[in-house]
Amino acid sequence: MSTQKEGPVPGIPYFTSLSSNIYLLKTALLTSSSSSAMAKSQALQSNLDVDYVISYRFAKTDKATAAAKFEKLCEALSNVGLQTEVRNGDSHSVLLFVRVASDEHLFGEVYRSRVRDWIHGVRAAAPSKETRESLEAEPLYEAERLRTIYQLITNPVSEGGAGITPKEGEWESVESIFALHDHAYNKDWIKKWSSQWFLNTEDLDDIRNRLGEKIAFYFAFTQSYFTFLVFPAAFGFAAWLVLGSFSPIYGIVSAVWCTVFTEYWKQQEIDLGVRWGVKGVSKIDIKRRDFQHEKTNTDPITGEQVGFFSASKRFQRQLLQIPFALIAALSLGAVITTCFGIEVFISEVYNGPLKSVLVFIPTGILTTVNPILNTLLTQVATRLTDFENYETAAAHDTALTQKIFVMNFIMSYLGIFLTAFVYVPFGTLIVPHLDIFNVAVRPFAEDEKQLHHTTTSWSINPDRLRKQVIYFTVTAQVVNLGMELIVPYLKRRGFAKFKQFQSARAAKNGGASPSAAANDSPEDSAFLERVRKEAELDVYDVTADLREMVVQFGYLSLFSVVWPLTAVSFLINDWIELRADAMKICVEMQRPVPWRADTIGPWLDSLSFLTWLGSLTTSALVYMFWNQSAGPGGNPSTIQLWALLLTVFFSEHLFILFRWAVRIVISKLDSPGLQKERRDRFLVRKQYFEENLSAMEKIPRMTDNGGEITRRSLEDDARQSSLSDSTPEGRFWGRQRGWRETATVAKGLIEQAQNETTTERKKEL
Amino acid sequence: MSTQKEGPVPGIPYFTSLSSNIYLLKTALLTSSSSSAMAKSQALQSNLDVDYVISYRFAKTDKATAAAKFEKLCEALSNVGLQTEVRNGDSHSVLLFVRVASDEHLFGEVYRSRVRDWIHGVRAAAPSKETRESLEAEPLYEAERLRTIYQLITNPVSEGGAGITPKEGEWESVESIFALHDHAYNKDWIKKWSSQWFLNTEDLDDIRNRLGEKIAFYFAFTQSYFTFLVFPAAFGFAAWLVLGSFSPIYGIVSAVWCTVFTEYWKQQEIDLGVRWGVKGVSKIDIKRRDFQHEKTNTDPITGEQVGFFSASKRFQRQLLQIPFALIAALSLGAVITTCFGIEVFISEVYNGPLKSVLVFIPTGILTTVNPILNTLLTQVATRLTDFENYETAAAHDTALTQKIFVMNFIMSYLGIFLTAFVYVPFGTLIVPHLDIFNVAVRPFAEDEKQLHHTTTSWSINPDRLRKQVIYFTVTAQVVNLGMELIVPYLKRRGFAKFKQFQSARAAKNGGASPSAAANDSPEDSAFLERVRKEAELDVYDVTADLREMVVQFGYLSLFSVVWPLTAVSFLINDWIELRADAMKICVEMQRPVPWRADTIGPWLDSLSFLTWLGSLTTSALVYMFWNQSAGPGGNPSTIQLWALLLTVFFSEHLFILFRWAVRIVISKLDSPGLQKERRDRFLVRKQYFEENLSAMEKIPRMTDNGGEITRRSLEDDARQSSLSDSTPEGRFWGRQRGWRETATVAKGLIEQAQNETTTERKKEL
Repeated sequence: MSTQKEGPVPGIPYFTSLSSNIYLLKTALLTSSSSSAMAKSQALQSNLDVDYVISYRFAKTDKATAAAKFEKLCEALSNVGLQTEVRNGDSHSVLLFVRVASDEHLFGEVYRSRVRDWIHGVRAAAPSKETRESLEAEPLYEAERLRTIYQLITNPVSEGGAGITPKEGEWESVESIFALHDHAYNKDWIKKWSSQWFLNTEDLDDIRNRLGEKIAFYFAFTQSYFTFLVFPAAFGFAAWLVLGSFSPIYGIVSAVWCTVFTEYWKQQEIDLGVRWGVKGVSKIDIKRRDFQHEKTNTDPITGEQVGFFSASKRFQRQLLQIPFALIAALSLGAVITTCFGIEVFISEVYNGPLKSVLVFIPTGILTTVNPILNTLLTQVATRLTDFENYETAAAHDTALTQKIFVMNFIMSYLGIFLTAFVYVPFGTLIVPHLDIFNVAVRPFAEDEKQLHHTTTSWSINPDRLRKQVIYFTVTAQVVNLGMELIVPYLKRRGFAKFKQFQSARAAKNGGASPSAAANDSPEDSAFLERVRKEAELDVYDVTADLREMVVQFGYLSLFSVVWPLTAVSFLINDWIELRADAMKICVEMQRPVPWRADTIGPWLDSLSFLTWLGSLTTSALVYMFWNQSAGPGGNPSTIQLWALLLTVFFSEHLFILFRWAVRIVISKLDSPGLQKERRDRFLVRKQYFEENLSAMEKIPRMTDNGGEITRRSLEDDARQSSLSDSTPEGRFWGRQRGWRETATVAKGLIEQAQNETTTERKKEL
Repeated sequence: MSTQKEGPVPGIPYFTSLSSNIYLLKTALLTSSSSSAMAKSQALQSNLDVDYVISYRFAKTDKATAAAKFEKLCEALSNVGLQTEVRNGDSHSVLLFVRVASDEHLFGEVYRSRVRDWIHGVRAAAPSKETRESLEAEPLYEAERLRTIYQLITNPVSEGGAGITPKEGEWESVESIFALHDHAYNKDWIKKWSSQWFLNTEDLDDIRNRLGEKIAFYFAFTQSYFTFLVFPAAFGFAAWLVLGSFSPIYGIVSAVWCTVFTEYWKQQEIDLGVRWGVKGVSKIDIKRRDFQHEKTNTDPITGEQVGFFSASKRFQRQLLQIPFALIAALSLGAVITTCFGIEVFISEVYNGPLKSVLVFIPTGILTTVNPILNTLLTQVATRLTDFENYETAAAHDTALTQKIFVMNFIMSYLGIFLTAFVYVPFGTLIVPHLDIFNVAVRPFAEDEKQLHHTTTSWSINPDRLRKQVIYFTVTAQVVNLGMELIVPYLKRRGFAKFKQFQSARAAKNGGASPSAAANDSPEDSAFLERVRKEAELDVYDVTADLREMVVQFGYLSLFSVVWPLTAVSFLINDWIELRADAMKICVEMQRPVPWRADTIGPWLDSLSFLTWLGSLTTSALVYMFWNQSAGPGGNPSTIQLWALLLTVFFSEHLFILFRWAVRIVISKLDSPGLQKERRDRFLVRKQYFEENLSAMEKIPRMTDNGGEITRRSLEDDARQSSLSDSTPEGRFWGRQRGWRETATVAKGLIEQAQNETTTERKKEL
């Protein structure tokens, strides 16, 4: 804990220079050591106008088919106005370079996308029918351009695309479609961030412009979370010094903070969505390509043939989620519970021989069995979600995220739940039964008496809960971060070494080395080598990073009352995490396709769920463990079920009430995004009004006629007679012509009425 | 209860003919008995093209000012293209008839309104700039026309209206602005409804076309509620026969029904909103005219000067809601609790003299004190809401509705809550202390022993709760309905009698009778007399009727487990209520201004709140009173606090889970409204695409060039040298021209790679 108190300050300059060095080191690794320094720098600086690279792998196909398919690929791309160049790739692959040659197709795609946005309310005004003009008024930013080109390549032919679907159906040989990193920008990015305390909105705008809104939303979320963490870190530190653990004051402040943060973020999403012009894009349904239809129906609206899959059949398949959740809960739960039991027994009950060795058993089991189980369950979850056969990408993602959240929930929090709500209240009842383990180690026992002695004198270890929370919020976070950064690096390093060894062996065996670079022109070779390395990198998955943050938030909302320094640890961790993720995207991953998003998606629900659950666990923990006279202090005999339930019940409803109040207050606040939205709307409206109302001005006012008619008002009788042959309506409306006549008649009526009153009053007197 | 079992069937034909007769009777009352039958019928049939009638009352102003103001009124109306006719009104008022003379201003208002709708997403497509054309394509329905004219009269001059604000500021003498009833339609309406079991969507469309969406939404809600009631009525009847009171099965079914209904209605609102073209109108902020600004700020968006009122100041004022709620709860609570105490004491404990008289004390107190308190508190609530000074009409309505809901909640449900959760569990502790009343009646006591005897032998009356629920769900509903129909009728009758008497006295005193009809032309007199009567009618307030329905729903969700026949009573009551409300609008009220709405507004929140609270009360009641072996059966000694809390806790969370599931299922369902919305969007998109994509077709495909270049592919070397002086990008992209060349080169690369593998494999062999 003493390392925590030192704070992040002395570490940061070191990290700054370190991270810059790591970046240089890593990017250097991407270019071969054999090329000259000039060419290396050149290869890093320029992408030679390449928009996308398509990696085409033909190892599993025969020569003729591969060549024919490739020809088709080139033709399809050419049909949508893309220019192609082919170069040799690594082991049985070629790299197809693609750039936009004819703007018309790109503009067509942009127009189509903008019309779709406008129909769904993402844009306030309809796009001008002159695309070239409107593009000049509102030029594409880099991410938008890349996204549009990607859609041009992958969209079905019927929607104006080339219909290339990587790794699927006809295009199984198309391994990946990726854009090239902008290394000059990346270097500046990492350098800037590593010397900056807080990221401002311009930094996020920058990410949005380069990597698209989906990734920008992850960084915006983490940055908001990081900024919000400053308060609980400071307050938590004070609480740790003054109040100690399980303080109800800390519990309330923490719950309030979590609620405010969750609600603030919801508003922030809207704001950023408007700022980035993507508000509402998540409502645009994108059809899933893998969707399997039972039959085709004629859409009653569009008249098109659309695939149909009955909802009841999907519901039946969704019911499989119940056994899945049960199996996940039971298998993961069984592993965690077993390890928990063994650990409690060995560390607290058992005092026999080999204790120093046996104590590692649970850690051993957890670190081997859990990742295997996790991988297995994730595969099952993915298959199950595929089987559920959703029509839209959004529905698919939500369903998958929910399953993954359930698994993560069990893996991350079950251990602490067991300690708090099983071990402490029921420990004295359960732990003696852990004797079964005793039987196993009995052969090793030196004397019988020692074993007997320990089991009887056992009492609950009150520090276990705190230690466990510290483990999850400090140790596990650091380990995670290390794994994220170092493992892929080592993996890549090892892979490079293996290939070096392989080609060396090949060179030893035969004369001609099958090097991919053999045909490269000397001018391009550094560039091509870099592209070949980038082709081998992994695809970045932003949801994994989001999941990590949400799980971390869960520790804070559920258990931070156990150890108030939690937020301090997270604050430090997240500062590094933000930068490490940026570096990961730049160095260890292919440049991601810049998808749009206007939310962090289903994880937002997880966030709300964790905040709500926090109101239950925090109040329960405070009631059970607060060591003051008011509470029962973790002694099971003094815990009253009714009092616990009452505490939780009140806490939950206070939370719901408070959340409602926060929502109202936040909805009232104005923000730059909302202002922008109103301004856009106002401008469109103003334009329309001005066009129309200028026409209105020309209408002659009826007053003009009125003046004319007043002169004629004396001719009343003449008119009366002329009306006699018209309709009742005509007669009714014909009596007074123009407002002046009406006013004159009314004056008479008013005077008459007033006179009558006066007369009447006089008579009465 | 036996009257309930008879069912509504025999009653309905009677009601049908009765209601027709009442309608004829009542409308006949509107026309004077002195005019001829022909004229009467004529006056009822035709509105003589009158769009609106403005009642101008000058009793409190002097002659000159009244006439000058009236002149100004006529001029303002004329300026917006309205023709005016003035006629004499009743006692110191004139009636100003208004109709549209120049369409341009009306069209301008329609255009302005449609642009506003389009900007806010209410309309899918922008309105055509040629209003006359677009009006021909999409003509105004009656309610739309009337609303537009009303807005033309009342909107500020700056927004193109005449700026007439009834009863306010400059226009204080303008008493009311109302349209005339369409009696021919009204008669058909009542006749049709009284012979119809269920109302279908066309009936609701009809109301929407005549009376506007806001009133149509009330009828749609009540109709949906009525239809939904059929199931709980049938199930409740079966439960009453088989299961008895407090059955957990009935409780679950009832909670499920309430949840499904609430969520269904939310979806139905969207559907109807789309059907009626008003989806999203509640999001269009309408500025409140009474809004008092502290200072004027320049709007950053529009550049206009707008009133500003600081949110913190409003929040301080809103804090007054806390003392208000406390005072309301305490005062109403005190009255109800006192009456409850007296009633329990007199009916159950007291056995002394005058019991038969004393038993009416609580009813007497309730019926006198409660309405007074209610009126007082409603006034305070209205003033408080005015004081809170909301900027928009919607915010004002919500704030007022919330306050009124709190008051209604206390008045309607507190009594039953007291019985269920105070009287039963704590009755044995509290009731003996009600002895204080004993002291008061002691003088009347005949013998001391009798008094003493009763207090000790007292035990809880298990039937009290059921009786109370029956009172509120049957007796009170019938009384309410009666009050709603009969009291206004008697009031109007009495008022007419009083005026008759007055004018008779005036005629006796002086010669000249100040009759309003004195100046009427014989042709118009019947019509004018009818208009004068309509001018005196009350203004219809749809929220009062909505409140009644929501409060009724509350009994069902909160307490119907006590008496399962509740829904049967409501089913009968609501069938009549729907028709009675229609009649009320037609006969007893001025024709309402047809406002738009896309929801039942803040009452929707009340509905959700009551559904949620129902999950708590129903489970608690079932736990406490279920007379089987499983539960404690209402005997206070057997009620365990922890078990009660656990029951409620589980029930609430089951409810939340179930509501979530229902929401998901309902959101998946397609509906005619949603289909219409999609169709509208699709058509707009299609139109845009077609215009643009026809231009796209003309772009020459790159393939054409490809063929030409293949021929040249042998000239490779020559091209290489010609490229040497261009940029690196130019050189990179110049190597292969056209997709055919790329494919050819790729073929070579693929062959080479395959050959190498073969060679390598051979060598290894």
